[in-house]
Amino acid sequence: MQLSELSDRSGVAAATVKYYLREGLLPPGDRVSATRAEYSPAHVERLQLIRALVEGAGLRIEAVRRVVGALDRPPESRHDLLGVAQEAIDGPAPEVVVTEATLRAVAELGWDECRLDRLAHLQSALDQADRAGVGVTPERFRAYAEAMLDVARADVAGFDDDPERATPAGAVRYVAVGTVVTDPVLVALRRLAQETVSAERFGAVSSIGPSERP
Amino acid sequence: MQLSELSDRSGVAAATVKYYLREGLLPPGDRVSATRAEYSPAHVERLQLIRALVEGAGLRIEAVRRVVGALDRPPESRHDLLGVAQEAIDGPAPEVVVTEATLRAVAELGWDECRLDRLAHLQSALDQADRAGVGVTPERFRAYAEAMLDVARADVAGFDDDPERATPAGAVRYVAVGTVVTDPVLVALRRLAQETVSAERFGAVSSIGPSERP
Repeated sequence: MQLSELSDRSGVAAATVKYYLREGLLPPGDRVSATRAEYSPAHVERLQLIRALVEGAGLRIEAVRRVVGALDRPPESRHDLLGVAQEAIDGPAPEVVVTEATLRAVAELGWDECRLDRLAHLQSALDQADRAGVGVTPERFRAYAEAMLDVARADVAGFDDDPERATPAGAVRYVAVGTVVTDPVLVALRRLAQETVSAERFGAVSSIGPSERP
Repeated sequence: MQLSELSDRSGVAAATVKYYLREGLLPPGDRVSATRAEYSPAHVERLQLIRALVEGAGLRIEAVRRVVGALDRPPESRHDLLGVAQEAIDGPAPEVVVTEATLRAVAELGWDECRLDRLAHLQSALDQADRAGVGVTPERFRAYAEAMLDVARADVAGFDDDPERATPAGAVRYVAVGTVVTDPVLVALRRLAQETVSAERFGAVSSIGPSERP
């Protein structure tokens, strides 16, 4: 198909398709003349993925480039590809010093497989919370960690939902795309759950009720 | 104190302080002459909060404006302020149709206090995951929801960590700032937990091990 059809079928504007081609996010089509190239269904699929990453997950072009790179060069083992996919979505580790307290907290959870660059992302998030004056207490840290372990179990069990995920490229796609587009689902559920727990604890009825009307 | 000292004490560049003043995020100081104004420790505190929201939580200026507005006009009841704080951080509800399936899934959880605008945020996140080709199955949805209920219980229990949170302004601050700066902590913990669960399931050793060397 030509560029105009590629644009129609993927729902991505022709100018944006050209931008992705220039940026190397989309491989070039097969040249059929000096001014025309031929694109394949794989191009449509890749464009839909890029769109999901940009619009759905709000990734920047640099992060999209890392995800696409991981898809084009998937690692051999299932566990390694997790690291590749995670690094693709979250970028290089921030330059922070992982504290003794954080190392101890993670060790107490028995999470022995954690890479140091992953811990740096956690440390950076904890530091920002501290600086905002709402530091995470050890009790809250433990509750958060256990809840996210339940989330991760559901994530990893999801590998079996689709046979395509058994291939390295399919697995990178599931981890990178699946994790990044479901972070907002978790965030939205957290807000809903807060409403539920808050209503249990403080009552759902506004204190400015009918009885207080003049 | 004068603007230069306000800048030093808050760690925010003088030009940025002026920008926040122009944008109305920071209330004006007391005019002492045509060219000088006097600022208070409350200005330092407000600047630190703005910095945490912008740098720590990555909020846009519009969202910071909503959080600051909620702090300046806190609602009366503890439960209402949760809604105000949540809307401040997440903005108005996206224009999506909440599906029957989502309404049913939330009803099955027994989350009866959920406002429709909150459900719209959830629906929007679920739609994006679908469009990315990694839709959330009912089993995964339920696991995510239950995990986030545990998170919310820890969040609401955190109200008791600091007596300042008993005041409406303190509570808005804790919910708005505390939720938005700990979303990245949860995201970081999810990645670490995925590593742990993945190592349990697929083994942590790379398949390109010593035995495969030539």
